[in-house]
Amino acid sequence: MSAVAEPGSLKVAQRVANGGAEATWNAIIQGDARFDRDGVLGRRAEGVDGAGVLSRAAELEIRFVCPGDADWPTVLDTMPATLDAGAEAVPPPFGLWVRGRGSPAGIGPQAVAVVGARAATSYGVRVAADLAADLATLGWTVVSGAAYGIDAAAHRGAMAMAGPTHAVLACGLDIAYPRAHAELLERIAGCGVVISELPPGMKPMRSRFIARNRIIAGLTSGTVVVEAALRSGALSTAHWAVKLGREVMVVPGPVTSQQSAGCHEWARNKGATLVTDAAEVVDAAGRLGVDAVSAPVGENRPLDRFRPEERDVYERMPAYAPVTVSELAECSGYSVPFVEASLRKLAGGGLVAEHDDGWARVPLAV
Amino acid sequence: MSAVAEPGSLKVAQRVANGGAEATWNAIIQGDARFDRDGVLGRRAEGVDGAGVLSRAAELEIRFVCPGDADWPTVLDTMPATLDAGAEAVPPPFGLWVRGRGSPAGIGPQAVAVVGARAATSYGVRVAADLAADLATLGWTVVSGAAYGIDAAAHRGAMAMAGPTHAVLACGLDIAYPRAHAELLERIAGCGVVISELPPGMKPMRSRFIARNRIIAGLTSGTVVVEAALRSGALSTAHWAVKLGREVMVVPGPVTSQQSAGCHEWARNKGATLVTDAAEVVDAAGRLGVDAVSAPVGENRPLDRFRPEERDVYERMPAYAPVTVSELAECSGYSVPFVEASLRKLAGGGLVAEHDDGWARVPLAV
Repeated sequence: MSAVAEPGSLKVAQRVANGGAEATWNAIIQGDARFDRDGVLGRRAEGVDGAGVLSRAAELEIRFVCPGDADWPTVLDTMPATLDAGAEAVPPPFGLWVRGRGSPAGIGPQAVAVVGARAATSYGVRVAADLAADLATLGWTVVSGAAYGIDAAAHRGAMAMAGPTHAVLACGLDIAYPRAHAELLERIAGCGVVISELPPGMKPMRSRFIARNRIIAGLTSGTVVVEAALRSGALSTAHWAVKLGREVMVVPGPVTSQQSAGCHEWARNKGATLVTDAAEVVDAAGRLGVDAVSAPVGENRPLDRFRPEERDVYERMPAYAPVTVSELAECSGYSVPFVEASLRKLAGGGLVAEHDDGWARVPLAV
Repeated sequence: MSAVAEPGSLKVAQRVANGGAEATWNAIIQGDARFDRDGVLGRRAEGVDGAGVLSRAAELEIRFVCPGDADWPTVLDTMPATLDAGAEAVPPPFGLWVRGRGSPAGIGPQAVAVVGARAATSYGVRVAADLAADLATLGWTVVSGAAYGIDAAAHRGAMAMAGPTHAVLACGLDIAYPRAHAELLERIAGCGVVISELPPGMKPMRSRFIARNRIIAGLTSGTVVVEAALRSGALSTAHWAVKLGREVMVVPGPVTSQQSAGCHEWARNKGATLVTDAAEVVDAAGRLGVDAVSAPVGENRPLDRFRPEERDVYERMPAYAPVTVSELAECSGYSVPFVEASLRKLAGGGLVAEHDDGWARVPLAV
């Protein structure tokens, strides 16, 4: 059936949800005109060599997992085949082809999608790799699509930290797509899994990429878009994440970069959370109270360890010219002895220095 | 009195608000112990050579404006000297020293502060200059602090488009601070004004910079922080803008840049609006319905002008390999004639091309 029904077919997903996969298959091969009205599924089923697909899969160590199997990622069961009027359905897959030493089972709570533009900038590639590496270090699984640019950088970053990473493809797992990533896909299969809804032999198509993206969104508790132009296809995974109620995160970048414009637009107008590092991703996508990390704060300033009055003395010193103790006492309202004592304490902290013509601030590192 | 009371003194501002400036001055010089408890103001008043300050100001063409004067920026009258319990007051200035060919009167509704780090990156300097230039083109006035880095870039960008720009200093207007910006300050005075609460002769101090920033926030309908490290002093103007109920905007930048970390933090956790160009600044800071501009959209895609079914044919084509008309009809469910007609229309739009072994997509510019 996975060789017959196009990934993301709502009609098939709803039939499976209502009557089960076997009944759906029977409806297809028996030519049930109420279900397969134009007969397209029936005609495709006639042309499928099921035994051939299975032997090809076995040969390449590609296994098929479906709901109920030990390897099945149960997080996908939350994808809604039907929804109340007004909302959109996100057809769950009825099975997945899987290749690799890892397992997709148990994925979800601590998994995040890291996706973005194929035509990524060097900035985006660096950020995606660093983010994925840091997420792997924090124990998170990185899921992506093995495409050029951001996707590949995310997989590589996670593997650099020996973290598991999974790739979801829009074609059969016998096809390395893109071809230049054949070795990358082998490496991913060596530590995680490569996943597809499509059986061996099926080619990538634009509609299949879009359907594939709902699996990437569905397998994870959030999607991070590292770089995307306005209306870029790279945002399709984010759209699915929204429909699935998963967290959508975007990485900011230079406003001069078109490849960050889609990220900024989503932060501004579509409710995406701005994230700048792995801790913030975990904070947004993590289960509340379990993975939450504290908000970033600036480094402690040298001035922080002085009393408010001593800091005030410091703040009342001219920015660039020396000042005498009596001048400073006059303008600050503090007594001469207090100003002098404060200056000596501040000097001990390296904040001020005494010169021939008075006291001056030592420039702070900005 | 401006030579005696420190800028931002809440005590003085409240007394002026309640009893007027003249009564406040009398309380100071008569040694009213209920008002000037430690006698600091009185002692400073004794040391001030009022006539000398005024003649020095006249010599340098520095004028003093106060509420009620034609030149007074009435937007400052909305700064609250007193607030209900729990909220903080933002002491309004009781007068400003002004130098330059422009006037601060009428500033506010279409004025925006563009501020940020002194240790700006080349990215920040470029963005600040471009933003200010575009704001000037849209008829907006750019206010800043004439400091190194972002401030100077903002003034220069506005003046490059012959837009008015005003600088607010933390010292007397006889002092060029920073010294290297003496020429910049002259240029600003040639088209806008340079403003200070402090009379000629007063030196810049850290506390005066902080007080100065409330004037920058108060003169404008919003503050844009272009670059700021976490807890940077450059965020002080943003803090004042929040207290004044003005819009706070931040420009995103590379997550690898510490000078953008403060901006990202404010967008994430302090409710600042992310802005990436002048139109978005006008959108956020402009009066609703008057200056609002539309949200950005991606450029029209070549595919947009085809019918949904034709786009669907395109989307079902393999991403990298040619496909025959009959294959495509089979997998898409459309008839052979319809697929063929759609392909010819798509070819006319440059989206697909016919080859010896079938039809293939022409790569789209990303």
